[in-house]
Amino acid sequence: MSIQEIKGILLEIKKLGSIGSLLHWDQETYMPEGSGDIRAEHIAYLSSLAHSKHTGKRFHSLLEKIVDMKTGEPLDKNVGAETKRLYYLTWKDHRDAVALPLEFVEEFSRHGAKSQQVWARARQQNDYEAFAPYLEKMVQLKKQEAEYYGYETTPYDSLLDKYEPGMTSGRITALFDELRGPLIRLVQNIKNSGTEINEKPLTQSFDVDKQWEFGLEVAKAMGYDFKHGRQDKSAHPFTTSFHPTDVRITTRLQEDLFKTGIFATIHETGHALYEQGLPAADYGTPFGEPVSFGFHESQSRLWENCVGRGKQFWEHFYPILKQYFKKPLSGISMEQFYRMINTVTPSLIRVEADEVTYSLHIMLRFEIEKKLINENLPVKELPEVWDQMMEDYLGVRPSDYKDGVMQDIHWSMGGFGYFPTYALGNLYAAPIMNQAREEIPHLEEKIKTGDLLPLREWLLEKIHCKGQRLFAEELILDLTGSPLSAKPFLDYLEEKYSEIYEIKRPRA
Amino acid sequence: MSIQEIKGILLEIKKLGSIGSLLHWDQETYMPEGSGDIRAEHIAYLSSLAHSKHTGKRFHSLLEKIVDMKTGEPLDKNVGAETKRLYYLTWKDHRDAVALPLEFVEEFSRHGAKSQQVWARARQQNDYEAFAPYLEKMVQLKKQEAEYYGYETTPYDSLLDKYEPGMTSGRITALFDELRGPLIRLVQNIKNSGTEINEKPLTQSFDVDKQWEFGLEVAKAMGYDFKHGRQDKSAHPFTTSFHPTDVRITTRLQEDLFKTGIFATIHETGHALYEQGLPAADYGTPFGEPVSFGFHESQSRLWENCVGRGKQFWEHFYPILKQYFKKPLSGISMEQFYRMINTVTPSLIRVEADEVTYSLHIMLRFEIEKKLINENLPVKELPEVWDQMMEDYLGVRPSDYKDGVMQDIHWSMGGFGYFPTYALGNLYAAPIMNQAREEIPHLEEKIKTGDLLPLREWLLEKIHCKGQRLFAEELILDLTGSPLSAKPFLDYLEEKYSEIYEIKRPRA
Repeated sequence: MSIQEIKGILLEIKKLGSIGSLLHWDQETYMPEGSGDIRAEHIAYLSSLAHSKHTGKRFHSLLEKIVDMKTGEPLDKNVGAETKRLYYLTWKDHRDAVALPLEFVEEFSRHGAKSQQVWARARQQNDYEAFAPYLEKMVQLKKQEAEYYGYETTPYDSLLDKYEPGMTSGRITALFDELRGPLIRLVQNIKNSGTEINEKPLTQSFDVDKQWEFGLEVAKAMGYDFKHGRQDKSAHPFTTSFHPTDVRITTRLQEDLFKTGIFATIHETGHALYEQGLPAADYGTPFGEPVSFGFHESQSRLWENCVGRGKQFWEHFYPILKQYFKKPLSGISMEQFYRMINTVTPSLIRVEADEVTYSLHIMLRFEIEKKLINENLPVKELPEVWDQMMEDYLGVRPSDYKDGVMQDIHWSMGGFGYFPTYALGNLYAAPIMNQAREEIPHLEEKIKTGDLLPLREWLLEKIHCKGQRLFAEELILDLTGSPLSAKPFLDYLEEKYSEIYEIKRPRA
Repeated sequence: MSIQEIKGILLEIKKLGSIGSLLHWDQETYMPEGSGDIRAEHIAYLSSLAHSKHTGKRFHSLLEKIVDMKTGEPLDKNVGAETKRLYYLTWKDHRDAVALPLEFVEEFSRHGAKSQQVWARARQQNDYEAFAPYLEKMVQLKKQEAEYYGYETTPYDSLLDKYEPGMTSGRITALFDELRGPLIRLVQNIKNSGTEINEKPLTQSFDVDKQWEFGLEVAKAMGYDFKHGRQDKSAHPFTTSFHPTDVRITTRLQEDLFKTGIFATIHETGHALYEQGLPAADYGTPFGEPVSFGFHESQSRLWENCVGRGKQFWEHFYPILKQYFKKPLSGISMEQFYRMINTVTPSLIRVEADEVTYSLHIMLRFEIEKKLINENLPVKELPEVWDQMMEDYLGVRPSDYKDGVMQDIHWSMGGFGYFPTYALGNLYAAPIMNQAREEIPHLEEKIKTGDLLPLREWLLEKIHCKGQRLFAEELILDLTGSPLSAKPFLDYLEEKYSEIYEIKRPRA
């Protein structure tokens, strides 16, 4: 059977990828500082092995026996829907793997490495002009890449598809249009509410060892399986998986950044639960993969925001937290604490943004990416566009490039199409959480007692264990009975923050 | 050029091996306990990839263009000595890789895994009869393996060759014959000396964090490069290398086992210095490899015993150690401490044996391995032979199997031929250390001041950076001008221990 042999090769490719992930994990956690060169070589070798298996004659000749190589449709018209989808995803991955000429991949990889270095230095020196030529070239390369991959409507769609399969820029534009106005208004209402929340107590000294312990306690309560996972420290928190039985998270703790540390752990644990819940039996096939980057983000944000920044959660955990941090939290009520972890402040930096303003940061990046890739916006005009949009969306204006247009690493690496997935994560998370509330009896009461496992089980059953059997929007529809919209997320924010900031809401 | 292409494939094989070593390292240090199955699968996959590259048609057809496939001699008679050797080693590795039929490799691997499990359980229950059939089968498999590999004199030589290339059992027998009598006499003299050394103070409580710090300080002084290495904790100390720029050691510390901890660190650092010193430019070719298992062991033992258990070393480090451990070492003089770390006590357990009795443990295993592989000693008679030899060699007799014939894991895994390399390490180390003393001006004085780098540099230049360009005995001859003999090791032991145990030595 052709498909069995194809699955055999896909399994090899997956193993090489998983092994590469371990090398990455080690690089970010324990690798000695002087070992970077050989590590890069080892990782590149694993990639090249995987790539050559995927693009080899053998794979092609097996695949063309079962699908129409132009469309990915099965040649046997009698196969079931699931098999049809498996064939299609397999064909699509293969099509993408063979789409880029080797010379292009090499040029891209060289330029990406260089461009990232230049960005890091230029950012430090607040020197946009030094970076601009590299960004210019990167934009050209990505346009070329889009041409190689092909697309139906705009080149940007082709880049987006690599992170969010099945999603188009037209669809995201519509969703973001739905979101923009109400979000800007909400931020305005919060600003005008007159309510001021003093969050200074959370920047006192919180012992990092205790932060570590408390984080582990929360991760355990969320159902993160430490027999098949672990937490380590790294410069930037991340989650990585080598298989559903070995999924690891990292965190970064700092004495005066309590909020950052705990929400990073909850966020990464959300990602990790998804990876631990993927169907191990499908390891190596497209069905063993997560739905999309945005869907992955929905899992981390559901736990971080809908659960972890919720009042019910802290009804159980705040008394425990107070045991860990008697001194810094003395005299601070649960209600005060809840407000302190939910302050909203329009600011310049995306990664420090709160739950309300975060999506605005993303939306302006999305608009800019479309302009760069589809509409030939000159790179030299980018800072002006950026600053103006910051003003329009968030009411703040950067005074330099460092904390403005040059703040993120993504564009220097050519990661166009990645940003929107962060905001999609929010949009997916809200209806999923609503659905969980409907289906899990007394969910809020359970969360109040620290019993988070019913939610973890529900997510496992409804989402995680399905792997990539459905695209993101199909899964949302399947799960909630309604098509994806920005409304659940907006409703969630308005309700929560109207209460926190005591905003008078117009009667419905 | 055929050889360039061959080197390309060898480099790929080496990379796969190095990556596999990282997977092993992770397994012993940080891997979650429930992730063993997928890890085993990933490691096995890397091995199979490497094996198929080594045994593939492409490699064979390249190789036969440059060497006589029957002998490994270069077809071009004009190549230089080094190239000739490179060809020979390349041919030999390939010959060994293709020698074993796939079914045999699989059977061996299956039986090895099973046999190891049975050994572990049977050992706990002191049940030799349960283990015997598995050992019996293992011996048969190893005999078969020897036939596949082929040999000149005895089947055991073929097994030995995998650990100690160029060494024969005849040669080791001669060396051990030289060693046996004097060693047994020395142990007897020590016993009869009447000197008793109380080493109880070293089993007091030594804070493990401080042990860790002190170990790192010593490793640094030895020249271990922490920019390209690190120390972690594991159940059994080991050294592993992914490239000369990434060489890692592990240790195991216990409050009441100060001696074990520090000498494990020094021992592993000795191994690590060798790996860090191997020629990076030869990474992937046989010249980038260490000489042999025995030679590797010579580096760890030279540092552990000749340096680390020497008086000069502690002249510098004992005052530092006393700063770390004021309480347990209070009132203990440097001279007392020196004796406590050099006690000699014939005992049942190899891994706990001192520098004098250690080789006797090895020699009896070597004799038994020859009997099993070459002389058809029935496995059921093994315990009786073991106990009798323990009595003859060490004057002690096991009262059970657990601490007798079943104490080591090696035979259960089929590691016949491995043991002798431990004792060869001692034999190599002694003349190397003598030579270092001759060539490095004021070496002893330097060691007394903690200046260990001249020795590290000398070993680097004379041994490490040469990789596998010479066989062990060639290298000893080259280095010292004399063929390998047991005399330097014996002289070293007699001088050191006659002083420690105040033995009257007959006048020369």
